[in-house]
Parts: sequence; structure tokens; C-alpha cells
Amino acid sequence: MPRFRMTVEYDGTPYFGWQRQAVGPSVQGALEAAILSLTTETVSIRGAGRTDSGVHARGQVVHVDLSRDWQPYKLRNALNAHLAMANEAVSVLDVEAVTEDFDARFSAIRRHYLYRIISRRSRLALEHKRAWWVAKDLDHEAMHAAAQTLVGRHDFTTFRSVHCQANSPVRTLDRLDVTRNGDLIEIRATAQSFLHNQIRSFAGTLKMAGEGAMTTDDVRAALEARDRKACGPVAPPEGLYFMQVDYPDVIPPRTPRTERQNDGDDLS
Amino acid sequence: MPRFRMTVEYDGTPYFGWQRQAVGPSVQGALEAAILSLTTETVSIRGAGRTDSGVHARGQVVHVDLSRDWQPYKLRNALNAHLAMANEAVSVLDVEAVTEDFDARFSAIRRHYLYRIISRRSRLALEHKRAWWVAKDLDHEAMHAAAQTLVGRHDFTTFRSVHCQANSPVRTLDRLDVTRNGDLIEIRATAQSFLHNQIRSFAGTLKMAGEGAMTTDDVRAALEARDRKACGPVAPPEGLYFMQVDYPDVIPPRTPRTERQNDGDDLS
Repeated sequence: MPRFRMTVEYDGTPYFGWQRQAVGPSVQGALEAAILSLTTETVSIRGAGRTDSGVHARGQVVHVDLSRDWQPYKLRNALNAHLAMANEAVSVLDVEAVTEDFDARFSAIRRHYLYRIISRRSRLALEHKRAWWVAKDLDHEAMHAAAQTLVGRHDFTTFRSVHCQANSPVRTLDRLDVTRNGDLIEIRATAQSFLHNQIRSFAGTLKMAGEGAMTTDDVRAALEARDRKACGPVAPPEGLYFMQVDYPDVIPPRTPRTERQNDGDDLS
Repeated sequence: MPRFRMTVEYDGTPYFGWQRQAVGPSVQGALEAAILSLTTETVSIRGAGRTDSGVHARGQVVHVDLSRDWQPYKLRNALNAHLAMANEAVSVLDVEAVTEDFDARFSAIRRHYLYRIISRRSRLALEHKRAWWVAKDLDHEAMHAAAQTLVGRHDFTTFRSVHCQANSPVRTLDRLDVTRNGDLIEIRATAQSFLHNQIRSFAGTLKMAGEGAMTTDDVRAALEARDRKACGPVAPPEGLYFMQVDYPDVIPPRTPRTERQNDGDDLS
């Protein structure tokens, strides 16, 4: 069956997270329902990351196998039309035809996340549910310095949810940068993979470093404690964005059968 | 009575616009209700601009007279607490004590607006109701060139709602810049004052210039026609943001009576 890779944006606010489940709406369920209504096929979509309830995505990547070989842009436009009809907060940004060697989750070599904090006295109106509101002043340079102690290969037991199902707490963190632009503080994290709640645990701990409640040495000691209790309070989901997934160049795109007679984009 | 100037941010989505009215919730009504619940005073707030339903603000400025002379930061924090309790999409960013010479509407010397367009094939998820989605490619340089024909002192009858209540259609447009960052196109407009729907009329016409449906000469001819029918379709409200209001420096701030024994900020 032809396999497709899709890049997906969503507002996580109305969903119980990425993964399909009985308790309520999910992003995966919204996409699968759009595919069902378009193709009458009941499919199971695989995502590169299982984001929690309230977490957003600008570049989640998924794959799905369909019985028909769609032209990618037509599949993108048709799915967006069905998502719009269902009033879902999900958009398919891009579709590519890929070979069965491509697996959105297991082929990923790097995942990029962004955590947004707005540090100001007044509550959020326009950025409500789009960032973590912190009423205190934060020293973003202290946050960045503390973050550098976390970069590298470590046992991240301290920064891992007790519900995390990964076999090992050891991960290699490639990047954890903290920058500021006005009252917006951005934490950018890159790794091949992350543990459950790892970035929100980082954000909660770095916020304490930013307000002077933890020093860089305290953050290093928290890491070395390998103890969940050494972590600062986990930051809320609304600040977290799944931004991008990188894959090796060696997985070649597939040429869809119908691609040869490209009749142009029918959305004008 | 002591007068206060406030800078206000709001998400315009849930409101029938700035102005208090019988048909539904308004930003003015939300602020007046917060003041009533805080002070038990029924007040009338004046805003620098009467934004339409769905239009946002990052820097609306208002003034209000209260019977008690509050310390500004305490008034800001207390109003935000009441707005949060009422679940309003409004935030008071800043409060200053001012003399009665200050009038949010009539003292204003410049108003700054931003109109945001996202030009991409896929529907909006995270920016839904925060920008105008245009599925076509737009040439922002053509839009900027066309915009320059509108800058200056003109009769803007073409770009004015038929419901506009201003006495004169003549305004001086100081700035109308179009810039691009990825798929985000930003139109920045500055003038002492604007006509009703003027910026959304500009945005709708410049979008036509961006897709090649109007040339710079066509936009100039539309202006010179002084005819509402020469205007492109009015752009939707969700792309428009009231950003900032400038006032002359000669209006001095007032020192509140209670300011002398400043006991620090009670929000920590």
C-alpha cells in the first residue's frame, strides 16, 4: 500500500493529546476521521511524537498507508477540507509520497521542540493557552547557563515523568538554548528522542533558575541526583510546541504513479 | 476625580467589538464590569479607538475617572484579577495616573495598526482567528509599492465604510509598509486617525495587488476615484491589531497621593 508522510500543525488546546483514546478528542483521531471521511478507509496513523494534552505542534510528522496512490498535493488539500468541515484545530502542511522504509517514529534522527514563556506582570490575553505566563522577572542568561549543564549524554531520571514508559532514562540532549525577545523567553531543545515530560521538566527547573531559586550548581546537582523529587515543578503544556523532525537523507521519496501527468494544483 | 490612563491587550474573537452595546459582550463592557466589581462604581471608559468585532489589540489606550486615588500598579493587578475571574480575554498591561488634560481619544496624535496575512496553501490551526488566511501566493513587494500611493494626505472615500461617521473623508496616512517573514505578511499603518474600515479596506485592496489582480496604477486610480465601489473586498477583522497610541509629551503624568509611601508591588 502506498505510504505517505505528512507534516501537521495543531493547536493542542481542544485535544486530550496526540494519541487516540476513549476519554476524548485527540489529534490522531481527528486525522484518522478526516481520512475515513475522505477515503472510507479506517487507518492507523503513526506520529513522530506523542504530545500531551494542550501541547501544540508546528511540525509533527506522521505516516499513513492508503490503498489508493494519491497525488500528494491533492491529498493535502482534500484532508484540509475535511478537517475544516469537522472544525478541527489541525492543518496538514505538507504531504510526500514515501517508501515503506520511512517510519515517522522510528526513522527520526532528531526532534526539535520550543517552550515559550511570557514573563510579565499582566495576565495573557492574545497569548492565552499559547505560552506559560510567569508573573515574575526571569533572568534568561541564568536560565541559559543552567541549561548548558543538561546538554550531553545523561541519565535524565530527574527530568522524566514517573509514567514514562521508555526502557532507559539515558538520552543525549544536543541543544538546550534560552533566548529572550522582550517579555518572550524561548527555550529550544533538540535531541534524537526525549523522555515523557522531559522538556516541561526542564522548563519548570529553568524557570526556578531564572527567578534565582536555583543556581547552575543546583541544576547540575538535580541532574546528578537521578531523583524525580529533585526536579522543579513541571511547566504547563500550553508553552510547548513540537517544531520539527529530522530524518536521514538516505530514505528516498517515492514517485507516485499518478505524478507523471501532473495537472497542476487545483486549489487557486 | 482622579483620572487613570490604561494600556489594554485583548483577543477580539469573543467580543462584538470595543464599544459597549446591547447585542452582546464588548471589551469596554468587560473593563467597566471589572471596575464595577472592584470599586462598586459604574463608570464609562473612553478608548482611543473603537475596534470592530473580531479585531485584536496589543496596545489600546483608555482613560477612566475613579473616586478613589489608587496606586497604579495596584489598580492594574486588581483589575486583572477581576478580568481573570470573569474569564475575559482582556488584560490591563499598564496603568498611569494622569491629569484631566489627558483624553485617550482626543489627545492621541498617532495610532499604529498591524494587519497580519498568512499566505500558504494549508488552513490555519495555531493562527486561526489571529491572521487572515490567504491560500494564494502574494508578492509583498508589489503590495508595498502599491501601498506607497496611499501614503500622504488624501480623500479616502474609496477606503471608508459606508457606515463611517467621520465628518470628513480626508486623512493623512503617515505610513503603510508591507513586509514579509516566511509565510507571514505584515502591513503596518500609522496615522493620527483612521476612517471606519480604512485599514481592512487597504488590506483587501493590497491583497489584490499582491496576487496581481491590481497594479500600482490601479490602486492609485481607486484612491482617486473617491468611490467606495473602487475598493477591493474588505479584509476580515481577525488579521487586524491595534498596536499603539502616541500622545504628546506635554501632558504631564499626575503623582497619585498614595504614591509617596510606595510599599512595593504586592504581586510576587
